[in-house]
Amino acid sequence: MKMRKWTFFLAIHLLFLMQAIGQEDSVMIRRIVEDVLTRGEAYEQLRFLCKKVGPRLSGSAGNARAVQETARMLREVGADTVYLQECMVPKWVRGDKDSAALLIAGKAMPLRVAALGNSEGTGLSGLRAEVIEVRSYDELEALGERVRGKIVFYNYPMNPAYVRTFMAYGDAGKYRGGGASRAAKYGAVGMMVRSLASNPDDYPHTGAMSYDPAYPKIPAMAVSTNDAEKLSRALKEKNGLKLYMRSVCGMQGEVLSHNVVGEIRGSVFPDEVITVGGHLDSWDLAEGAHDDGAGCVQSIEVLRVFRALGVQPKRTIRAVMFQNEENGLRGGLKYAELAAAEGKKHILALESDAGGFSPRGFGVENSDVSRRDNVKAWASLFLPYGIHEFTNGGGGADINPLRKLGTTTVGLSPDSQRYFDIHHSGLDVFEAVSRRELHLGASVMAALIYLTDKYGN
Amino acid sequence: MKMRKWTFFLAIHLLFLMQAIGQEDSVMIRRIVEDVLTRGEAYEQLRFLCKKVGPRLSGSAGNARAVQETARMLREVGADTVYLQECMVPKWVRGDKDSAALLIAGKAMPLRVAALGNSEGTGLSGLRAEVIEVRSYDELEALGERVRGKIVFYNYPMNPAYVRTFMAYGDAGKYRGGGASRAAKYGAVGMMVRSLASNPDDYPHTGAMSYDPAYPKIPAMAVSTNDAEKLSRALKEKNGLKLYMRSVCGMQGEVLSHNVVGEIRGSVFPDEVITVGGHLDSWDLAEGAHDDGAGCVQSIEVLRVFRALGVQPKRTIRAVMFQNEENGLRGGLKYAELAAAEGKKHILALESDAGGFSPRGFGVENSDVSRRDNVKAWASLFLPYGIHEFTNGGGGADINPLRKLGTTTVGLSPDSQRYFDIHHSGLDVFEAVSRRELHLGASVMAALIYLTDKYGN
Repeated sequence: MKMRKWTFFLAIHLLFLMQAIGQEDSVMIRRIVEDVLTRGEAYEQLRFLCKKVGPRLSGSAGNARAVQETARMLREVGADTVYLQECMVPKWVRGDKDSAALLIAGKAMPLRVAALGNSEGTGLSGLRAEVIEVRSYDELEALGERVRGKIVFYNYPMNPAYVRTFMAYGDAGKYRGGGASRAAKYGAVGMMVRSLASNPDDYPHTGAMSYDPAYPKIPAMAVSTNDAEKLSRALKEKNGLKLYMRSVCGMQGEVLSHNVVGEIRGSVFPDEVITVGGHLDSWDLAEGAHDDGAGCVQSIEVLRVFRALGVQPKRTIRAVMFQNEENGLRGGLKYAELAAAEGKKHILALESDAGGFSPRGFGVENSDVSRRDNVKAWASLFLPYGIHEFTNGGGGADINPLRKLGTTTVGLSPDSQRYFDIHHSGLDVFEAVSRRELHLGASVMAALIYLTDKYGN
Repeated sequence: MKMRKWTFFLAIHLLFLMQAIGQEDSVMIRRIVEDVLTRGEAYEQLRFLCKKVGPRLSGSAGNARAVQETARMLREVGADTVYLQECMVPKWVRGDKDSAALLIAGKAMPLRVAALGNSEGTGLSGLRAEVIEVRSYDELEALGERVRGKIVFYNYPMNPAYVRTFMAYGDAGKYRGGGASRAAKYGAVGMMVRSLASNPDDYPHTGAMSYDPAYPKIPAMAVSTNDAEKLSRALKEKNGLKLYMRSVCGMQGEVLSHNVVGEIRGSVFPDEVITVGGHLDSWDLAEGAHDDGAGCVQSIEVLRVFRALGVQPKRTIRAVMFQNEENGLRGGLKYAELAAAEGKKHILALESDAGGFSPRGFGVENSDVSRRDNVKAWASLFLPYGIHEFTNGGGGADINPLRKLGTTTVGLSPDSQRYFDIHHSGLDVFEAVSRRELHLGASVMAALIYLTDKYGN
């Protein structure tokens, strides 16, 4: 009887203790959110990155300047160590002439186009050939050798019925990435792809492609969704129309670049590392505001709010500006390589690379399911801030290479409805970012890092 | 034994039946969402309302034209009856001269201002008086008679720490609404209020105010948040500065206006009415895109998708464009008055009047808790579409008068982070609306109306 009584009191005691801990955490998270929403600096840092530095394509002068400027920001918010990690990145340049395309149908009809990243240009004299439309790889395969000597136009729209726009991006993205070589295999001389955009617009949306070394490297461009429709209509009216394409882009080898790392050293377990990051490189058509200036300044903000609230982390927190996510992933690979070499324990990495929109959830990934579920167990603490889902499977292109070290990878999931309106196009500018949405995202990232630091993973 | 077996089989049978019904509903809701995301017309209707009709302040020519145009849209999407409900509305006009204000401090400093709706103007010659800043009603009361002959400047910011921006709006809104008469009580001759905006900007955000008939009707204006800061700094540097205000606005009596109603008559219970609506009137400084063109076209879209999918409602569905929400609520009051008189059963009303942003939830209100909970029981059906909360307490200014008929009132809750960036200012234009966000909101509204029609309330 006495034993049962004792157990009962112990249980009650533990229950209260757990509740008290939960309350302590929720109070701290509220302080973090309120501080970021009230005094956050991410938005002004993003303005600087967009308006004073500008586009940050790997290997460009803007990118090199962004390395210096974000290193300065990391020092200013109170990182105790700021350093650069050298990595070689491919240098692709669009060239000093705009890409152009004309559909030759009676009067020549100009199309709004942009060369795809990593693609080889046509040269200044351009390329003129018959254009043939396909809606899928199945249609391409059915045509086979009939595309020889022609320009293949992939007209596969992002499916608007997907509520999660990244699903539609994943579905339609394969034509941009691999469509050139698939067409070259059958002798096509050029490739044009419908832009990956959620809605009809007049902007070409660029992005990376890669060549299969087995086939000729044919020029590859994205055409705006409105002009894809126009082109498709013209081809329905009259078969065998010719298209003129011109681009002077191309690879210029590799150059030295840098990941930027800002650290607050852990006071108890300095050899346990928690990473939070975004990628510093961007496409060249705009300012890389949502993609991924947002993720960079949000990661810097995590350090700022720790300092502002006097949080001394037990573990080492690193804010990382990864290099070359868009067309090579060299920064993320280098970071994981150095992480493996330094012999520290990389327990968790969080990336924000889905836009600076209102946050809705986190995706969490670890093959050790219990470590994944430890993170998911915090879900209720985030509900007051509109974070309503902790899903399985998540991370980011830059942090996924850490998985082989056993690191838990987490990706911030912002609302995705607007992302592919601006993604990789001339519309990805500072003005498209909402201060409150950006800061709310940064604050929940800081809260997740805070809990990870406190409880480990 | 046999009885238990029978009960067991019955229970299992019911369980499968419930699951089948749940599946049937989730399939139908998916069809609704996919159709609206793919073929929705709300966005193009909103473009028309914003760009071809423009501002729609009660009593204005634009408002009268919007009545005709939305009636046309309702007919075009397939309402079987479209009619107007007459109601008298106040006609307030800003006047043909812009409102203006100058702070007289050495060199005169112009301030970006807009007269508050319903306020009386200064007249063409304007008003010149000492300006005195207060941060709250407490500070005003402490000053008391010392504000006599002066202009009171309420400088109370929206609290950025509130995650739900409508909380901050409710908190700060009292100064705009009632601040003029509170100041006039102590002899103030003019009132200026810091704009209700979430972030620093250069736009005055107008909105309704009302006078307490016990005190003189003094002129009242909103000043942009940036200029509120500027004014406050100037007053810190030098007390007793004079302000010049000019506005030529004022009330011009009442005029005839109309609610617009489009109906699909119920096939089984035509006397049970389900209402879905937004308000047609808007402020005059922009296009009333989010406030509340969005809610109007979303409500029209509900009828469109019912027709497109061949859904024949059992109950009568009414899409209603309410009149005069911004500065009088006459449309909503008239609708409830006519609803009481017609003797039909108004079971549920849904309003969208919080912007056309990504939907996140519904607020549901009925003093009969079981009817409220019947709606909340559908929550899980909405999760795939990002609707993560069904909260208690909800509706909208236009539908709340129906509560006295026992009607369940429901308000759509979109993401609120951007709303007060544009609300009531020159920034509330079509370009600020995302097609996907608007359509996703319309689709979950249609789903809620679908379930209400199917199961009643």
